[in-house]
Amino acid sequence: MQLGMVGLGRMGSFMVQRLMRDGHECVVYDAKTESVNDLVGKGAVGSASLEEFVSKLSRPRAVWLMLPAAITDKVIAQITPLLDSDDIIIDGGNSYYHDDIRRGGELTAKGLHYVDVGTSGGVFGLERGYCLMIGGEKPVVDSLSPIFKSLAPGVGNVAPSAHRPDQAGSTAEQGYLHCGPHGAGHFVKMVHNGIEYGLMAAYAEGFNILKRANIGAATHEVDAETAPIANPEHYQYDFNLQDVAEVWRRGSVITSWLLDLTSDALHADPVLGAYAGRVSDSGEGRWTIMAAIDESVPTPVLSAALYSRFSSRDNDEFANKVLSAMRAGFGGHVEKPKA
Amino acid sequence: MQLGMVGLGRMGSFMVQRLMRDGHECVVYDAKTESVNDLVGKGAVGSASLEEFVSKLSRPRAVWLMLPAAITDKVIAQITPLLDSDDIIIDGGNSYYHDDIRRGGELTAKGLHYVDVGTSGGVFGLERGYCLMIGGEKPVVDSLSPIFKSLAPGVGNVAPSAHRPDQAGSTAEQGYLHCGPHGAGHFVKMVHNGIEYGLMAAYAEGFNILKRANIGAATHEVDAETAPIANPEHYQYDFNLQDVAEVWRRGSVITSWLLDLTSDALHADPVLGAYAGRVSDSGEGRWTIMAAIDESVPTPVLSAALYSRFSSRDNDEFANKVLSAMRAGFGGHVEKPKA
Amino acid sequence: MQLGMVGLGRMGSFMVQRLMRDGHECVVYDAKTESVNDLVGKGAVGSASLEEFVSKLSRPRAVWLMLPAAITDKVIAQITPLLDSDDIIIDGGNSYYHDDIRRGGELTAKGLHYVDVGTSGGVFGLERGYCLMIGGEKPVVDSLSPIFKSLAPGVGNVAPSAHRPDQAGSTAEQGYLHCGPHGAGHFVKMVHNGIEYGLMAAYAEGFNILKRANIGAATHEVDAETAPIANPEHYQYDFNLQDVAEVWRRGSVITSWLLDLTSDALHADPVLGAYAGRVSDSGEGRWTIMAAIDESVPTPVLSAALYSRFSSRDNDEFANKVLSAMRAGFGGHVEKPKA
Amino acid sequence: MQLGMVGLGRMGSFMVQRLMRDGHECVVYDAKTESVNDLVGKGAVGSASLEEFVSKLSRPRAVWLMLPAAITDKVIAQITPLLDSDDIIIDGGNSYYHDDIRRGGELTAKGLHYVDVGTSGGVFGLERGYCLMIGGEKPVVDSLSPIFKSLAPGVGNVAPSAHRPDQAGSTAEQGYLHCGPHGAGHFVKMVHNGIEYGLMAAYAEGFNILKRANIGAATHEVDAETAPIANPEHYQYDFNLQDVAEVWRRGSVITSWLLDLTSDALHADPVLGAYAGRVSDSGEGRWTIMAAIDESVPTPVLSAALYSRFSSRDNDEFANKVLSAMRAGFGGHVEKPKA
Repeated sequence: MQLGMVGLGRMGSFMVQRLMRDGHECVVYDAKTESVNDLVGKGAVGSASLEEFVSKLSRPRAVWLMLPAAITDKVIAQITPLLDSDDIIIDGGNSYYHDDIRRGGELTAKGLHYVDVGTSGGVFGLERGYCLMIGGEKPVVDSLSPIFKSLAPGVGNVAPSAHRPDQAGSTAEQGYLHCGPHGAGHFVKMVHNGIEYGLMAAYAEGFNILKRANIGAATHEVDAETAPIANPEHYQYDFNLQDVAEVWRRGSVITSWLLDLTSDALHADPVLGAYAGRVSDSGEGRWTIMAAIDESVPTPVLSAALYSRFSSRDNDEFANKVLSAMRAGFGGHVEKPKA
Repeated sequence: MQLGMVGLGRMGSFMVQRLMRDGHECVVYDAKTESVNDLVGKGAVGSASLEEFVSKLSRPRAVWLMLPAAITDKVIAQITPLLDSDDIIIDGGNSYYHDDIRRGGELTAKGLHYVDVGTSGGVFGLERGYCLMIGGEKPVVDSLSPIFKSLAPGVGNVAPSAHRPDQAGSTAEQGYLHCGPHGAGHFVKMVHNGIEYGLMAAYAEGFNILKRANIGAATHEVDAETAPIANPEHYQYDFNLQDVAEVWRRGSVITSWLLDLTSDALHADPVLGAYAGRVSDSGEGRWTIMAAIDESVPTPVLSAALYSRFSSRDNDEFANKVLSAMRAGFGGHVEKPKA
Repeated sequence: MQLGMVGLGRMGSFMVQRLMRDGHECVVYDAKTESVNDLVGKGAVGSASLEEFVSKLSRPRAVWLMLPAAITDKVIAQITPLLDSDDIIIDGGNSYYHDDIRRGGELTAKGLHYVDVGTSGGVFGLERGYCLMIGGEKPVVDSLSPIFKSLAPGVGNVAPSAHRPDQAGSTAEQGYLHCGPHGAGHFVKMVHNGIEYGLMAAYAEGFNILKRANIGAATHEVDAETAPIANPEHYQYDFNLQDVAEVWRRGSVITSWLLDLTSDALHADPVLGAYAGRVSDSGEGRWTIMAAIDESVPTPVLSAALYSRFSSRDNDEFANKVLSAMRAGFGGHVEKPKA
Repeated sequence: MQLGMVGLGRMGSFMVQRLMRDGHECVVYDAKTESVNDLVGKGAVGSASLEEFVSKLSRPRAVWLMLPAAITDKVIAQITPLLDSDDIIIDGGNSYYHDDIRRGGELTAKGLHYVDVGTSGGVFGLERGYCLMIGGEKPVVDSLSPIFKSLAPGVGNVAPSAHRPDQAGSTAEQGYLHCGPHGAGHFVKMVHNGIEYGLMAAYAEGFNILKRANIGAATHEVDAETAPIANPEHYQYDFNLQDVAEVWRRGSVITSWLLDLTSDALHADPVLGAYAGRVSDSGEGRWTIMAAIDESVPTPVLSAALYSRFSSRDNDEFANKVLSAMRAGFGGHVEKPKA
């Protein structure tokens, strides 16, 4: 079927390419002309403005937005007046599901349809396919099935879940799922990313323990400020992190795609020297915690994972100064200089 | 080659079976006669006492112990006098690596060898193979290679790690790895389990958020003790957790074996009614935190995962009473009854 | 000066009494007639309706609302049409500071003034005075100084802060403070309560450790599911928690009013048998975390304190079932029954 | 009575001075001659060697060690051969209570007595007195009462705990307490310090939130890596942290000595520019977590407080690199440079 794509960054561009492989017709637009031209060269129909873009789509139009969350509302405001009744706007970016609920209401009031799609798969999606979590009215979502089916990974060689009936009544094993009404797609994607933060932090903490397992071999000074290592003989290991990551990929309980990626990175450079360890976060992790708090659900692991990222960017600096000032206050403790 | 196995619980019995499939000769012993008989029926050489067990092994003997951590030392004390110089004791259970270091020293002093093997794979190991993390003297570990190779999963259909050379100099891609000297195997296994706790908790917290995403649909009382839900319209989702788990298994960033198992469990029963939510922990998670603290490595995620298990067993009860008592003290707050 | 008080629960009633002690005239209203009558008996001017209440106040009126956060907006909507230009509405309850900012704008547009006051002191405030954190326009706040001064504790016998000049330019040492524009008072009170959660949890966790310090004296079963206590000789202490709380109140680094209250509670009953340990939370703790996340400030301690309360109400139940289901999945682990 | 003091750092020296004020005779020794001389000038009996020190004490001798935990065992080994039956060694430093239990056994076997004393009060102890938590045999502890009574703060002007009988059967309200057998004193002190870490972190996190409450005033770039601040109008506050700390000292729920110290530090310099925020930890916080884990007591708050200190010293660096490497792996995310 035909799909219009606005926003041709890496994600948008790869999705268009994956769709065209399956024979879909893609009309594309991006503020950067070279991004449009690149896809035209690969078979897409290009457009030089939102007006031209809309004019090249057949009604009812299906317009997929793949934009930074911060500008999605602006583009929706620009394109809405150009659309006709029953046209569909699909937000495949990382919107807050609160915004989906609001947009769903606003666009419905205008006779348009809105579909939110949480998309996981990253830069590997072009080849592996994208896991799609979808929110919106069921008939509208159903009408887009050919698109979702092409973007999704399909059953692949993943073993069936035990106890899952052959006709389970959903497309989940194809890799795309209508999760519920407006916002449901991004809600599930939000929690997906919250979990992702937790998984990543679990591996990161574990490898850090392995990395410092030789700490007993170093000489440590003895003073009133520093607890001596009671048993230095227990920390004399120089682990090969590449090999550890590799062996865990075979038959262990903690096999996962994130471990595969970690193994790749450690094999490229076991000290990860290309990174300073300043870790960004991009919204969903935060929203996950806020939702958990609204629901009174304890999420100590997911929160700790988020906070580790904040601390990696030194946002704990003033708090730490307060601690040092207290210690100086009651104990006369003088800070040791940064190494 | 020949291996003696002491301890024929599920893990020990399955390992013997996997070894015999590859043509190894297994001499077996367990305090429970029926466990011995069962394996004899499958081709193993049985024994009715540790003495008989030792007598049936050729020198240098390789004795694999697969026992609860609490009794391993006792059995080592019993069997050591029966062994001869250069015999090997292998501990495949979940020992604390401190004990491995101690035992390694003690047995070396007696002319024996000690190898610690962390084993991951659970009840699926018979078919999938076991991921083996090994500590001990290199020549001794090398001499046991045929055993490790048969127990491990092998390369299988797991994609090679990017940037890993063909001849990487270790057996990691076969699923077994000599990690370092005495204790190194159980150290790596300990951290493996610490990570496992974190991964499990990340999924558990995420599914809990999804489960309660319909909380806005319920009616809530308004009083000074309870914060009203500001936006009940944001929590009206009835997610199908089976489908969510299933769709995440296809192409998402959070695919993993633990997610596969979660999907299986949710398909068997979406409310997990067979479980009360009282979660055990069996040592490695605790030791991981203790090692992290000794190393001054922050592990907020792994710790939170461990503490969730403690709380699931109501070990936070007195702490919570203290909180309620304080609230009564400064605010006159009266506890709401348990639902 | 004259003040009108709406909402005569424990907090509102005590504040009226404290104000009347200092000679202020208080006009009072509450939906419950007996609450009005009670204060009339103590010298207040009563009223049977909001209309009567407003009519008894001199312009510019000062109307203090002391209501559950959930109904404050409703009462503001009812009373606003009855007020005249330059009248002041003061919210002394536990409002979310977002609501203060909104209300400040709305009431300003109507020619009215809005002041938000975070109030700490609990049921002891009548005698100790209330710590007041105030947001709003400076001249308006200044006009209410006689009220704030009477409600606040005053300098008392608290030692001056080191390095604080005699004329520090604020009323902070009197126990009330204009913190900034609309919402600033409740923002500071929100963080105060967030800190309060953290402090309370620190004591609660500590006393729990002391409580269970005799765990080595009990007999423990040995099985593969349970890590044996390595050193039971280290956990043979039967601490007298009353005495420990009492001794910490003298000269230790952790003296505080919350510790005083804990000591009181433990002396009333060392096992705190009147409490089940189901701990409520009432908004500010949650908002603190949300603000921290918006600001990218790591707050692991304050979050953990909040989550402990969620878990105390068994909101972790489904998460724990997921953990048990996974453990059953990979390890065949069977849940131990709840004790 | 007479007391010998070994270790004349700030703590030891202040304790000697406080004891002499009450008329006790103090024999002192330190490896640094000038420390000895300083106290001789204030009335103490000096000694130039451990031998001389012991010779100047009357039997049964009471020898108080006030040393860094790392060298306490060495000094005990040196002095033990010089002592006679029924002499008492008191460790007032920050020993691990495991070591107390061991030493108690060893010294008892030699006919000596051992008392462990956890000491809180810091540099203010000379004036405020020291809160003393004591472990050991009751008759031995009782024999030292005059010393403990002089070091402790006494009842002072702290209000009595509600419900505490006049004759409560312990000296807790005097500020010293016999907590139980060997190790009990340092166990209680360990938990005291664990709580201290939690309290300190609660304040530090709270002030950090206040500090960054003006983050909405700054301009933020919009890109796919950074979540935009949804409501910058909520973060426009420039709080005066000095005043906030000061006002909280009057009548609020979170008054404490640590808050007093924080207020002092903020008044000295509101940006705490003298500190880099590299926070040490000195043993007891770690041991508290280890004890909690041994007891299966969840301590998320106390652990988070400890980990904040580890992170303040950049011990999370490799973990953060692993996170950045994973993000690069699945999302092509490029690290933003450190500001």
